Parts: sequence; C-alpha cells; structure tokens
Amino acid sequence: MTDSETAQGTYVEPGEFKRDTNYITTRITAEGRDGYPVEPGRYRLVAARACPWANRTLIARRLLGLESAISLGLCGPTHDQLSWTFDLDPGGVDPVLKIPRLRDAYLARFPGYPRGITVPAIVDVPTGQVVTNDYAQITIDFSLEWTEYHRDGAPELYPEALRAEIDEVNARVFREVNNGVYRCGFAGAQDAYDAAYDRLFTALDWLSERLTGQRYLVGDTITEADIRLFTTLARFDPVYHGHFKCNRSKLSEMPVLWAYARDLFQTPGFGDTIDFAQIKDHYYKVHTDINPTRVVPKGPGLSNWLTPHSREALGGRPFGDGTPPPPPTPDETVPAEHSAR
Amino acid sequence: MTDSETAQGTYVEPGEFKRDTNYITTRITAEGRDGYPVEPGRYRLVAARACPWANRTLIARRLLGLESAISLGLCGPTHDQLSWTFDLDPGGVDPVLKIPRLRDAYLARFPGYPRGITVPAIVDVPTGQVVTNDYAQITIDFSLEWTEYHRDGAPELYPEALRAEIDEVNARVFREVNNGVYRCGFAGAQDAYDAAYDRLFTALDWLSERLTGQRYLVGDTITEADIRLFTTLARFDPVYHGHFKCNRSKLSEMPVLWAYARDLFQTPGFGDTIDFAQIKDHYYKVHTDINPTRVVPKGPGLSNWLTPHSREALGGRPFGDGTPPPPPTPDETVPAEHSAR
Repeated sequence: MTDSETAQGTYVEPGEFKRDTNYITTRITAEGRDGYPVEPGRYRLVAARACPWANRTLIARRLLGLESAISLGLCGPTHDQLSWTFDLDPGGVDPVLKIPRLRDAYLARFPGYPRGITVPAIVDVPTGQVVTNDYAQITIDFSLEWTEYHRDGAPELYPEALRAEIDEVNARVFREVNNGVYRCGFAGAQDAYDAAYDRLFTALDWLSERLTGQRYLVGDTITEADIRLFTTLARFDPVYHGHFKCNRSKLSEMPVLWAYARDLFQTPGFGDTIDFAQIKDHYYKVHTDINPTRVVPKGPGLSNWLTPHSREALGGRPFGDGTPPPPPTPDETVPAEHSAR
Repeated sequence: MTDSETAQGTYVEPGEFKRDTNYITTRITAEGRDGYPVEPGRYRLVAARACPWANRTLIARRLLGLESAISLGLCGPTHDQLSWTFDLDPGGVDPVLKIPRLRDAYLARFPGYPRGITVPAIVDVPTGQVVTNDYAQITIDFSLEWTEYHRDGAPELYPEALRAEIDEVNARVFREVNNGVYRCGFAGAQDAYDAAYDRLFTALDWLSERLTGQRYLVGDTITEADIRLFTTLARFDPVYHGHFKCNRSKLSEMPVLWAYARDLFQTPGFGDTIDFAQIKDHYYKVHTDINPTRVVPKGPGLSNWLTPHSREALGGRPFGDGTPPPPPTPDETVPAEHSAR
C-alpha cells in the first residue's frame, strides 16, 4: 500500500483520516473465473518490506511455501509522489518485469489509473499488467486457490471451521488496529487524534485480554488473523509509538501482546520477513507532512525481539498438522543488520 | 528560555543546532554591584512551568524558601513568535507587572532588544525592567546572594567544598544532556542527528554509571547539579523520547536514572513544580517545524513517577543539615490533573 496515504486516503471528518478501500478486485483463482488462473511461474508478487499490508503477503507466501510458484519483486522503502520504485534492483529496474516503477504495471492494464499505486500487487508477467492489489483477498487466495502448489507441511491459515471467527477478528483488527495506528498518526486535529488514540488502545487492551489465556488469536494454530495483527505489532515500537503518537505505552510495555508478538517473530516465516531498517526509513522519510526533516530515529534497540517469550506454556500447535517452513532463500533473506539479530 | 529555539539558536554546521548562549548578565547581589541589590519584594521571577531552564529556578526558589522574598509570574505553555505571554492570568496581563508579554519588560530596559525573549527572567518591579535572564547564574545567586532571606532549614545547594565538582558535572550535563536533547530534536540532517543521539546516550550511560552507587550527583545531598539534570529527565518520556527522537529507550527503561529521577520527583520542591500538561503543550504546539499538526500526544501514562524508587538504600541526606520545604502555597500548586497524581 502506499503509505503516503494522502494519495490513498481522504479527510472526511474534520481532521480524521479515512482510508480509501477501493482496490482492483480481480482474482487469481484455481478455475480462473476472472481470466487469471493459478499457474506457477506466471505471476510476480510485488511487495515492499516496509509496508505492513504487503508484509502480510510475504508471510503467507513463506508459510505456505509458494516461493517457487510466485516470484517476488521488492520495491525500496521510500517512493516518490507517483509510485513505489524498484530502486533496490540493479539499474533501478525490476529484473523480471523490466520496469522502474510499479506504476508502469498499473498503467499497462488501466491507462490513467486514478487511485494510489499500492503494494502488495500481483503482476501478470507475460503481459506486464497488474492483476490485483486487493491485499485482503491476496492472502486468502494464497491459502485457498493455490493449494496445489503449497509446500509439503503447509499450515491451514484459513481453516473452514474457523472462518467466521477469523473474519470477525480480522474486521475489528483492521478497523481498530491496522488502520487505527494510521488514524492516530494522520489525525489533523487534536479531537480526531484523541478519539483515535482511545479507540486504538481500547482494541489493544481487548487483544491483550484475548491473548492472555490462548497462544493465537483464533483456534490453537497460526491463522490469517495472526498474520494481520503481527505486521502492525512489528512496526509499533520502531514507528507507530513515536511517529504516529501511539504512545500510551510501547508494545514492549504491554506484556501479553509483547510476548505474543515475539512468539510470532521467532516463528519461521514471520520475523524473517521483517526489515526494521526499511520499515523506519519508509515512514519517517515518506511522511514529510508529519516529519518534515525526514530524519529517521536511531532507536529503539530491537534485540529484545529475540528474548524468550514463554508462550509455549499456553500450548497451541503453531503449524497444526503441518511443519515450519525452511529458512528463506539467500536472495530473499533480510540482511542481518536490518533485522533484530 | 524560548523553545522556539530558532529564535535563540542558529544552525552553524550542516543541520546541527547551536544554542545562542548570550544572556543579560546583570546580577542581583547582596552588595548590589550591578545596581540591583537583594531586596525582598522588589523583584519578580517570570517563569513558565513548561520550560526546563525556567523550571530550575522554580525548584531552587522552593527548596530555599524564597517564595515570600521573590514573587512569581507564570507564562502559559505556548507563545507566539515574539514572546512568552501571560495568557494564564485574568485578562492576559501579569497582575503585578501589568504587562501582557514578557517582551514588554525586556523592551522597557533595552529598546529594540535583538535576542530571544526567554524565561526565566527576573524583573525589577518598580521600573518594570528585566534585570537578568541568565538562568545559569540565577539559581546560583538564589543560593549565595539571597541567603538572608532563605527559609529556616534551607539546604546548601552550592556548597563551597563541592563547587568545582558541581561545575564540572554541570558543564557536561548542560552540553550533553540539557542541550543534547535539543541537539537531537532540532537536527536538520541525518548525520547531525545521529551524532547528537550518540552523544546524548553516551552521557546518559555515564550518568547511570555515576548514580549506580550514589544517591545524588555530587556529594551526599541534593545540589544544584541534581536540579539541572532533573528538569531534563522530567521531560524525557513525555516529550524528548518522541518529539526529539531521543528514543534509544525511555527514561523509564533506564533503571538507575529512572529511580534517581523518581526519587527527586518525590522530594518536596521537585515534583511539585512539574506540570506535565503544560510541558507537553509547549513543545508539541510551539515547534511547528517538527510537529506541523500541533497535535499533542495523549501518552505516556505518568502515574509511574510515584512508584517506589528504593534509592534510600544508597544513604544520602537529601537536605543535608536542613529540612524539606513545606508544600507549595495554593496559588502556586500545580493542578492535580496536570501532574502525575
């Protein structure tokens, strides 16, 4: 998603930020109902490690073992007014799509595309056209449509029996937490901020209570719900606490949520997708409206993510009947100096 | 001091903030060498609870019991481009000086005064002219020149035998900590910020080490050195950690300094001068260059300032042969909802 969110959001109430939730809803499905059938090697996931919405897709792809079926293009942490760019790649061009800007893939399909150029996006490699940027559907389709190409031991992230409960939790987590931190940070008036802050911490208190006696959000295994909460929690202390003024306390001062977040961070497929350096660069350099100097804070120290969390005592089977994924391939490994190691 | 510090500081190196340290150095002394002899009822201290430099004078005046000898005018937490103002007073006018802006007292003595209008300032009531704004000298003179009007049991805050050591500690604390937080916050470039951050936390580590085995900074009683460090520490978590990006950790995550700060906070004359609401309002509303929205964070929770600190185990005699001051008078009491209570 573009986090220069003013391109993607609007201010409807005085000072209150509202996210534009209109995305390209074309789906890649097993039977190909929208003209884009599941097919290994055909699609390229374009993400940015900085972005919490894109981060979900990186985790789901890792957990399900879809790396060899769906290739990965990564945009750098900052972007200009127009687009996320492939500035991390040699020559500033994606080696598969051969484009410098993600925008090019959007325009290839929709000339004059009027909305935000967001990650994650999936691009049809043969045509160079974006297929979808509907992040909420992308991870679900990874789980349910790409099953033929899942790795052996892939977990069930959206099990049928738990779907109603996962959907319900996800809806509240999206509204109050994933988007709630932005509502705090982009509030243009004190009243709007105050209300946003109260909503956010009310929801975090609810989550703390929910997770006190159970290891995962829904059921006793990792699900889609955990992925969605995790990507916001991972950014809480490095960014949201200061930059977005979500500062009742740090995540590391909320014992239950902090242990829950570390448990996931230390689970293969979660922490190994996190690039704290890119995350900080992104928010502090892109949001010049709230950080005009573009100076990126050096803190906080992050080695505490690797401390024991003791959540195993709550039971739970992280991967259910499945197994953890193997380590990421070298070309998809986050540099040690960017992670908590 | 004006904390719209660009009025008071300049940027000499690329992006590095340098404080203008030229003040009005006229002194009020027992023998009156500058034409301003010590005289009870003649002078009015003008401060702002928000300002750390002015806060020193509030603490020293309380500890020494100079309230009845030197009256107090308080400016509100925010100020305009020109001056601190008496916006908290009925009609927006100081009831003794009869002026709406502190600037008026500066101009009464120096027409066209070219430098920043800063608190603390001491004004000669009969003429309405500012005498001094040299905050570093003001508290020393409270201790050494106003002795005749100290309360019974007033502590020695600048004892002769410890002066050299106090001066040495004060010099480093000023350079690296009191001013060091501003150097972080007002850095206009990443390199300048990074260097400022390292300097600040190097100094805080030195202070943590120094205070591990001793209750106070110099000797075994409260001195001028503790006053000067305290006013910065009190602002650390509410302001400097987020607003100035001093975020290696919160003060509350540095165990020795945090216990030291709470010990002082809970000592009469220290915590009872602190108005967290005004402190936060000041920084977040005045520095529009680093907080364009002027939104003031709701956090962090501050009741933790009243938790046990266990520093008594280190010994020390807070007031030496003296005694704690009585509670502040009702008209000088910080509203409960603005303090940590």
